[in-house]
Amino acid sequence: MKVAFQGEPGAYSEQAVFSYFGDVETLPCESFDAVFDAVNAQKCDAGLIPIENSLAGSIHQNYDLLLRNQLHIVGEYLLRVRHCLITMPDVKMEDLKKAISHPQALGQCAGYLRARGIKAEQVYDTAGSVKMLKESGARDTAAIASRRAAELYGMQILEEGIEDNAENYTRFLAIQSESVVPEGESKTSIVFTLKNQPGSLFKAMSVFALRDIDLTKIESRPLQGKPWEYLFYIDFIGATHEEAIKRALDHLREYALTLRVLGSYPRYK
Amino acid sequence: MKVAFQGEPGAYSEQAVFSYFGDVETLPCESFDAVFDAVNAQKCDAGLIPIENSLAGSIHQNYDLLLRNQLHIVGEYLLRVRHCLITMPDVKMEDLKKAISHPQALGQCAGYLRARGIKAEQVYDTAGSVKMLKESGARDTAAIASRRAAELYGMQILEEGIEDNAENYTRFLAIQSESVVPEGESKTSIVFTLKNQPGSLFKAMSVFALRDIDLTKIESRPLQGKPWEYLFYIDFIGATHEEAIKRALDHLREYALTLRVLGSYPRYK
Repeated sequence: MKVAFQGEPGAYSEQAVFSYFGDVETLPCESFDAVFDAVNAQKCDAGLIPIENSLAGSIHQNYDLLLRNQLHIVGEYLLRVRHCLITMPDVKMEDLKKAISHPQALGQCAGYLRARGIKAEQVYDTAGSVKMLKESGARDTAAIASRRAAELYGMQILEEGIEDNAENYTRFLAIQSESVVPEGESKTSIVFTLKNQPGSLFKAMSVFALRDIDLTKIESRPLQGKPWEYLFYIDFIGATHEEAIKRALDHLREYALTLRVLGSYPRYK
Repeated sequence: MKVAFQGEPGAYSEQAVFSYFGDVETLPCESFDAVFDAVNAQKCDAGLIPIENSLAGSIHQNYDLLLRNQLHIVGEYLLRVRHCLITMPDVKMEDLKKAISHPQALGQCAGYLRARGIKAEQVYDTAGSVKMLKESGARDTAAIASRRAAELYGMQILEEGIEDNAENYTRFLAIQSESVVPEGESKTSIVFTLKNQPGSLFKAMSVFALRDIDLTKIESRPLQGKPWEYLFYIDFIGATHEEAIKRALDHLREYALTLRVLGSYPRYK
């Protein structure tokens, strides 16, 4: 099996691929677009994309790509993000003047770096910062990335878990060309549009509330070319082959201008 | 009057300040945080922050800053974003090999650049790209920024309105230390949290639907430190001194764990 992800080898997304799919072949892609393209073109069997981080919020580009492509969500995975302070061998904390990484990783370790007088400098991605550091050989600089990135480049982990807030999780979605029929507790992701009228979202929510269906996420996105009209993305507990879910979606079609099921898949536990 | 905005002189945010407030003094700030800090510290009378773009979606950092600070939203403004292709004097289209700008501006002109074989290169911000271009004097490079940025640096506008999608608007919010009581048609922005239970968002929406109050925006944000619990940001038509709105908010307080009114302000027309 071959699975596409966005980033360099050693990226958090690659770590998530191995944790979710097991010992598979990976296909590193430059962009999220390229991950979708690779699955569409059958260059790989599946893709794994981050959709939401517990601190930073949704990755909107991937919501847009889910809509533009005709792939199916077949699974979800939650990765606990643990940032490592990575250096050249034998570098000591007191040698460090600056840290390089992706802006989001730097932001999540801002308190840690400030307390030690280490300056933050933004680069393109986390695993890439380790590669850059190794190439430069700088001994006054640390990279912030995953344990796997450090190991891949044979670098030293000076400290692990340097994020300011431990409740740092990223939710990933597995995408494939074919849908699945999940067993056990499931989740479903849908996207829909509504008439721009008072109460229209309330009516849409009622189809779930009336059937005690538990929503786990709601997200609105602007509709391209129609300023201030919105798409709604909703995740709920249940799968489309269950009777209550079928009826709720039938009911929603009465109000929705458009409705698409992005996939039903096993809930991550 | 003195108004803070994020960015360099010539930024789209500065253009919005002049369009909304008129001929005021501006205070350029490095970050959105710094805009809030400047208003808090009374270094200026107001701040103007972008909250939403019709193509790119919400600027989440500013939602978080609205919550963390105790300022009031006192107005909104809609800026039509028109990107200019800016060069050194007398440079011609056929001389151009690359364009530099903020990633979002480059993305919004991707089709235009591709059709002309111009490579995109990311820099920190739009107005800053004009400054960089002037300093380098490069004649194979264009910057993408506002008309104002071109004029400020005495540069040539080779073409105006190069964005791929004309429906490109950014919504700005004016923030101050004191709240206002708006006259005429108004909007109110609130933020609240709910019990993590099936139907809780439906109940919250009912307080508006039952009173025919028109929601113009709903946004969910993760609660820091509580993975997968959400804050909800809602904008609706009406002001807090109106009876129906008062009653709706009273009703909402029965369900909400927390509720804060960020401000009532005149609706932009």
